[in-house]
Amino acid sequence: MMRVPRRLSLMLGLACLASLAAGPAQAEVSAETQYIFNTFSFLITGAFVMWMAAGFAMLESGLVRTKNTATICLKNIALYSIAGIMFYVIGYHLMYTDVGAFMGSLNLLYNPAEAELALINAEEATPELVEAAIAGGYASMSDWFFQMVFVATAASIVSGTLAERIKVWPFLVFTVVLTGVIYPIQGAWSWGGGFLAELGFSDFAGSTVVHSVGGWAALTGAIILGARKGKYGPDGRVNPMPGANLPLATLGTFILWLGWFGFNGGSQLALGSALDAAAMAIVFVNTNLAAAAGVVAAMLTAQMLFKKVDLTFALNGALAGLVAITAGPDLQNHLLAIVVGGVGGALVVLFVPLLDRLRIDDVVGAISVHLVAGVWGTLAVGIFGGGDLIAQIIGIVAVGAFVSAISAALWLGLKVTVGIRVSEEVEDLGLDKAELGMEAYPEFGYGSQRI
Amino acid sequence: MMRVPRRLSLMLGLACLASLAAGPAQAEVSAETQYIFNTFSFLITGAFVMWMAAGFAMLESGLVRTKNTATICLKNIALYSIAGIMFYVIGYHLMYTDVGAFMGSLNLLYNPAEAELALINAEEATPELVEAAIAGGYASMSDWFFQMVFVATAASIVSGTLAERIKVWPFLVFTVVLTGVIYPIQGAWSWGGGFLAELGFSDFAGSTVVHSVGGWAALTGAIILGARKGKYGPDGRVNPMPGANLPLATLGTFILWLGWFGFNGGSQLALGSALDAAAMAIVFVNTNLAAAAGVVAAMLTAQMLFKKVDLTFALNGALAGLVAITAGPDLQNHLLAIVVGGVGGALVVLFVPLLDRLRIDDVVGAISVHLVAGVWGTLAVGIFGGGDLIAQIIGIVAVGAFVSAISAALWLGLKVTVGIRVSEEVEDLGLDKAELGMEAYPEFGYGSQRI
Amino acid sequence: MMRVPRRLSLMLGLACLASLAAGPAQAEVSAETQYIFNTFSFLITGAFVMWMAAGFAMLESGLVRTKNTATICLKNIALYSIAGIMFYVIGYHLMYTDVGAFMGSLNLLYNPAEAELALINAEEATPELVEAAIAGGYASMSDWFFQMVFVATAASIVSGTLAERIKVWPFLVFTVVLTGVIYPIQGAWSWGGGFLAELGFSDFAGSTVVHSVGGWAALTGAIILGARKGKYGPDGRVNPMPGANLPLATLGTFILWLGWFGFNGGSQLALGSALDAAAMAIVFVNTNLAAAAGVVAAMLTAQMLFKKVDLTFALNGALAGLVAITAGPDLQNHLLAIVVGGVGGALVVLFVPLLDRLRIDDVVGAISVHLVAGVWGTLAVGIFGGGDLIAQIIGIVAVGAFVSAISAALWLGLKVTVGIRVSEEVEDLGLDKAELGMEAYPEFGYGSQRI
Repeated sequence: MMRVPRRLSLMLGLACLASLAAGPAQAEVSAETQYIFNTFSFLITGAFVMWMAAGFAMLESGLVRTKNTATICLKNIALYSIAGIMFYVIGYHLMYTDVGAFMGSLNLLYNPAEAELALINAEEATPELVEAAIAGGYASMSDWFFQMVFVATAASIVSGTLAERIKVWPFLVFTVVLTGVIYPIQGAWSWGGGFLAELGFSDFAGSTVVHSVGGWAALTGAIILGARKGKYGPDGRVNPMPGANLPLATLGTFILWLGWFGFNGGSQLALGSALDAAAMAIVFVNTNLAAAAGVVAAMLTAQMLFKKVDLTFALNGALAGLVAITAGPDLQNHLLAIVVGGVGGALVVLFVPLLDRLRIDDVVGAISVHLVAGVWGTLAVGIFGGGDLIAQIIGIVAVGAFVSAISAALWLGLKVTVGIRVSEEVEDLGLDKAELGMEAYPEFGYGSQRI
Repeated sequence: MMRVPRRLSLMLGLACLASLAAGPAQAEVSAETQYIFNTFSFLITGAFVMWMAAGFAMLESGLVRTKNTATICLKNIALYSIAGIMFYVIGYHLMYTDVGAFMGSLNLLYNPAEAELALINAEEATPELVEAAIAGGYASMSDWFFQMVFVATAASIVSGTLAERIKVWPFLVFTVVLTGVIYPIQGAWSWGGGFLAELGFSDFAGSTVVHSVGGWAALTGAIILGARKGKYGPDGRVNPMPGANLPLATLGTFILWLGWFGFNGGSQLALGSALDAAAMAIVFVNTNLAAAAGVVAAMLTAQMLFKKVDLTFALNGALAGLVAITAGPDLQNHLLAIVVGGVGGALVVLFVPLLDRLRIDDVVGAISVHLVAGVWGTLAVGIFGGGDLIAQIIGIVAVGAFVSAISAALWLGLKVTVGIRVSEEVEDLGLDKAELGMEAYPEFGYGSQRI
Repeated sequence: MMRVPRRLSLMLGLACLASLAAGPAQAEVSAETQYIFNTFSFLITGAFVMWMAAGFAMLESGLVRTKNTATICLKNIALYSIAGIMFYVIGYHLMYTDVGAFMGSLNLLYNPAEAELALINAEEATPELVEAAIAGGYASMSDWFFQMVFVATAASIVSGTLAERIKVWPFLVFTVVLTGVIYPIQGAWSWGGGFLAELGFSDFAGSTVVHSVGGWAALTGAIILGARKGKYGPDGRVNPMPGANLPLATLGTFILWLGWFGFNGGSQLALGSALDAAAMAIVFVNTNLAAAAGVVAAMLTAQMLFKKVDLTFALNGALAGLVAITAGPDLQNHLLAIVVGGVGGALVVLFVPLLDRLRIDDVVGAISVHLVAGVWGTLAVGIFGGGDLIAQIIGIVAVGAFVSAISAALWLGLKVTVGIRVSEEVEDLGLDKAELGMEAYPEFGYGSQRI
């Protein structure tokens, strides 16, 4: 695994561990203890990131209309499932080609010594076997799990933007390609040790590699799919189509915030030394400060511009702060974390109406949150000295061009073959009844505001 | 504690630890460090499992009708509480009789050295005391906590099936017996070192020991309690009574999925060696792959059979995949995990209508998910070489016969004494108003679909 | 950091660690391994506590009426954000003045050696630097993170009580002062090593320091703000204004319960020794037993008094049990944990109607839960021998007098300047439409029970 943000980690194999063991202070944590810490950190922080799938599901459930709510729930659980299977079948493969041990094999993803160790009884574990098994510094499947939940996050971003008018199965076909091919290929460029890594492109936990990827895929999809019926009047008027259940959207935001501690904190990629533990703590704090600043900045910006504080701006402000800090939460300057997150939160309040003026219909604001704040956060690493600004720009552009081009080709291919958009009748009726044959809230009566 | 799935764990007391300490490689993790890892793993993964109580509460809240929603919430928080108290008062006792230290005592569940250690100041901790305290390999109360949340899971399964027509207090009386007596006795047979353990019955985290137990108790209850009024027409017609809040059901499923990483991962029962860490990572990955496969298989099966993808099938597909893999997530073959989970997901789509044809009214599909997929997963361990198929069948039958017989006697006893079913008037009005004197959604108007 | 409940922890600096290292048994966990354990424990348990912010948001969203739901969501995410920023800017400073390293600096909150260590590559880490960096026993930012989520909890308590009639921005101004000044000053008295600590006042995780603080601030606010329009009839009648979404309130309770394992468990403040791990396990178990007892006691009390079991009593019973045990979950007597939690749960059922009789309008029952059960739990430590009863009473009174006085002054100051209460028209219309310009559930029709 080659995702080595900003500095060499402790986890680059036996040679590195052996050399560390020579130093008296580092030797205080034994290689096996390091292996356990690193593995447990991947598993627990990875579980936090998995939880973000629930966050997206709740955020999007809350921000669509009742007639499309069951469908967005279905898409969210389906895309998380597809992401996991595709990343197993091919994605991890494409992204981290240095993990040669499992090439060509579907059922053996780890190094043979680890597999053997995991199968035997404790008393049969010879020192040689243990040494060979822990040579990688962490359990290989714990790394796989952690990487897998990241690709799922990228896929989750797309569903919100395109909600309420895209067909279920073509959307899932797009997800198959996004998670199996598109995400892993661009991921290989930076985290897989490819040309962006060599250029010095720096993206700690994925402002560009994860969030902008979802954002670009969503943007091209939104353009090709078109806006929801009635969203934009002929006179340039924007018709609000408010989300049906804002407490759920709030819950989704809190879930994502919590999950982000795993997303950013786990991206330290190690816990086996004091250095890693200290760095992870800094990452947690900066992540929280940026999100908090995003909320406050979005609220103040909205209050100034619109004289009211829309709840959805506060929620998206938190998410934009989180996306923005994701490229560089390991910078120690906490004041900068507040600046980076705060700018992200303000940007959302500016870009949501801007996209509407461009008639790009983003149901949940995901493009402003994940693409705009993702680009901003990646640039901020260059601006504030955590990386080379030119390399950052090259990375943003390269990923954007690649993901947009492939996504556009794919969306267009799906459009001319199976079709990606439901009929007007289905859109009026709602996808829940038409595509799923059910309702999300079958008992509740509806008021006059239902469209 | 005797729950030692598939191989001797590292945690069998001082003798084992001492012998390990002799080997140069294993000695890299000191006994005290192992004790901390094992303890922290129990606590954190146990907290994840506790969270599954919230998952069941949300799943069931979303799948019942509005008029019974507050009642199902009440049952869920009450049953989790009762499970915790009963397992403290008697259950742990019955299940793990080898833990002799606390026999006969209500307020001292741990070994005396641990208790003493936990009370003193750090500088008073003599080497002898520490050594005596850590002899078990983990803090005894961390194990208690982990075991307790498992019994709560078994109890949670029952409430969903019997929703919308069972009286609150008799249901809670059943929960008292289930968690204090029924679950612990059958648990002792396998995890407590009883006859099933000696036979070679293998159930890593409880497809049979936990999930089928809840399923059998639910099945006998459903038969004795009868179907909801109007569910089955005289002409054999099945009247749909759709769940009132599907985003909540989706949330519940995601919560359960997250919690399952603790359920299966923590069932490695140790984290203090590279062997355990590697195995836990494999468990996480297989758990996720099986759930993902369950979703995809359920969606495809539903699409083929019914030409539509019901969201609840996708949700129950995830859960069935999780239940199915629970008996053997430590098998290293990830492709098999996909097969086991996928079959589980498909089975749910077949069994939900089948139970309806048998007029067994399972409000949330819990019998298909926890009993059917639980049996399948337990068999799969035998079929795919992780255990002896005959032993697996004996375990399934023994647990099923015992739990069904005692549950039936208890349900019948409650039926003829206090009664278990609400009156028809109460069922029409809804249990919330009748039994609790409140409504779950008091302000929302209701549409014509409300029954 | 001076929060050293009940006994000297392992974390008091290099001298202490060095002396421990001399003992053969304690030396089994190296200083660097201890540092990693302590840091990771702060981060993970702190993330659990952060999650409680979502719990309060859901609990309060479920217990207010639909017309004020979006506003309570906004307040909850805003107050968590403000708490984080204020505690960074000034709060931590005021509370733990012994952490001199960052005094006067906004962007460097940790010791310089840690900062340097976190910035460099692993191979540059000299033994001397590592030794200096780990001298504190844990990463300083991990402690900061853990302390920060506690102040957020105190702030969350206030919003529920004052819901449905307080203006958004003045409430947030109060939050600024509460989290930046009021909470830290009283916190310094006990956890910062101040006069209450010297008196022997004992509050393990904050029954008084956190929960009663929120409770006192809420109580003074409720008195000064007045009851909701129509809540109390002229004839002494109490008009019920039931919460609009009880599954959300149930979810919020489960979230809080889960988060409390971090709240209490993490308050052991260390994980780097067997002693700490054993103590943390005891804390988890007592926390769970107290909450479970709170549920059961509240249900039985409600059944006896009112002949029905209101769901909200069960939920608040759980929370009261949790608040009550928070002052002393490290007492090993599990039976006492049941008693302490059970009394807490029963107290809520008695105090909710009592406050109504006093015409103190507490929308969610937070005063009964956090103040009443917080006082009870703090007293219980003295009564059951875990502390000095006189010191406990002095602590309760000192904190109560200070927080009430400052809060009252602040509420009154806000009242006479910007005003704290919305107009009657706004209260009728709902704060969502009036202050936020939106609705929480815009599509749902409303029934006749809507007020």
